[in-house]
Amino acid sequence: MHLRKEKKILIVGLGLMGGSYARALTKAGYWVGAVTRSQSSIEYALEKEIIKEGTTQPNEDFIGKYELIIFALYPHIFIEWIEKYQSMICSGAVLTDVTGVKGSIVYKVQSMLRKDLEFIGAHPMAGREVYGVENSKEELFKGANYIVTPTSANSVEAIGLCMDLGKVIGCSTVSVLTPEQHDEMIGFLSQLTHCIAVSLMTCKDSEYLVDYTGDSFRDLTRIAKINEDMWSELFLLNKNELLQQMDLFIGQFKALKDAIATEDRDKMKEMMKLSTHRRGFFDKERKL
Amino acid sequence: MHLRKEKKILIVGLGLMGGSYARALTKAGYWVGAVTRSQSSIEYALEKEIIKEGTTQPNEDFIGKYELIIFALYPHIFIEWIEKYQSMICSGAVLTDVTGVKGSIVYKVQSMLRKDLEFIGAHPMAGREVYGVENSKEELFKGANYIVTPTSANSVEAIGLCMDLGKVIGCSTVSVLTPEQHDEMIGFLSQLTHCIAVSLMTCKDSEYLVDYTGDSFRDLTRIAKINEDMWSELFLLNKNELLQQMDLFIGQFKALKDAIATEDRDKMKEMMKLSTHRRGFFDKERKL
Repeated sequence: MHLRKEKKILIVGLGLMGGSYARALTKAGYWVGAVTRSQSSIEYALEKEIIKEGTTQPNEDFIGKYELIIFALYPHIFIEWIEKYQSMICSGAVLTDVTGVKGSIVYKVQSMLRKDLEFIGAHPMAGREVYGVENSKEELFKGANYIVTPTSANSVEAIGLCMDLGKVIGCSTVSVLTPEQHDEMIGFLSQLTHCIAVSLMTCKDSEYLVDYTGDSFRDLTRIAKINEDMWSELFLLNKNELLQQMDLFIGQFKALKDAIATEDRDKMKEMMKLSTHRRGFFDKERKL
Repeated sequence: MHLRKEKKILIVGLGLMGGSYARALTKAGYWVGAVTRSQSSIEYALEKEIIKEGTTQPNEDFIGKYELIIFALYPHIFIEWIEKYQSMICSGAVLTDVTGVKGSIVYKVQSMLRKDLEFIGAHPMAGREVYGVENSKEELFKGANYIVTPTSANSVEAIGLCMDLGKVIGCSTVSVLTPEQHDEMIGFLSQLTHCIAVSLMTCKDSEYLVDYTGDSFRDLTRIAKINEDMWSELFLLNKNELLQQMDLFIGQFKALKDAIATEDRDKMKEMMKLSTHRRGFFDKERKL
């Protein structure tokens, strides 16, 4: 186990994700501290005993004692934070994150970081359509996938530490991908699906639809409730990859549309059989 | 209450839907019989006591005692059944169905039906990705929407009877739409969503994706596990409406894609805010 119990862990950004890390890690027996923007989040987390200490004002005395730091911030705020406060971090500390894009973040942070610190990217594949530490959950990551995205700049030890972290917070599958593989995967699995949900939900005025809908429309649009600041930033940071995934989807959607228009029943059935087969691999649903 | 407890109810087609009707109606205290193709389905339903009697061979003695008949068949088999066996139905009986398209079915059945019988279309907005009476559930319709699609050929009493039926099986909202309104609604809410799920699921080989996915991709593709015979038939029976809904969606999807390509952050956020607002009407999720 690389993630020893003596390690103090700092969460930077105590929102839904940061708060859920804090809960899971505190529950697992770690000393957890937090830096965040709002004093009320700190107070809430102290009261709920999901952190040992917290501050809205980063300073060396506070920051300097943490050997592992998890950043749960908007990407551009993450970069700003490193620029401004990395001088306060103790030598040898490992930094990791939860950011939903990697290629445009990981190399940048690694190149600007002090040489005696190490940053390794990670992405827990879990979330909810609500915000803030008040909505955080100890079990948010239970059974979820966790992706670690090392580069040649990373040590074997930091990779092991980060993989341990994924297990400790409750993820069931911990994988290693390059930042580029991650971005292709996430462009397809997460960003494209959010684009589909948003597009579908904006098609029609929906108030009167509620009385007629079945579960399929509900399921497809759950993620249409979306934080526009966060997701517009993530989309643009993965723009080229996302556009390719969108084109791939449009191609398949148009193929199905053509089959319907020309009443090509064989083609329709062929696509449905393929989709049924491929969905079969997902049958082991994650239960929260 | 138009659906009096003395009325004997016949289910034609004892699969997932028909079986779930049988369970819910038997539980509610009605006498339920069934006609279906497979003897093993009859035996299963008798053993589970979800029907009082059943046969694979329609005959006048059997059919003639039922005053309400619910058809849970593929559309083309439904039409064939009416042609072949309507002579066996007792005078004054009301017929209804569960078919997922209406415009191409309702008028046809009404025009071919004996003048002393009445057909009124209905569509319970519920389903599962599994088949057969063995997978049927008494609570399948619990909290679901139920749509009745009368025409000028229908009596007030039959409309009331059919609406009662929706309530008795457990639906929480019973609405009345014309067949045309129904088909537009279902083209958008159900058929389009299935087209999206199938297209998305056919984009990539999926076996290796399972370890990286989050809940959004799972939710969007749940319905990609699809009965290709049933759904290709339903799509083609609502072809013109569905193609229009597909075009509507492509338009919105391309607008979002253009906003990403041109880095038009305002446009992206505007769509996301609208989708968040509209999804808000669906917040009261249906719980099974």
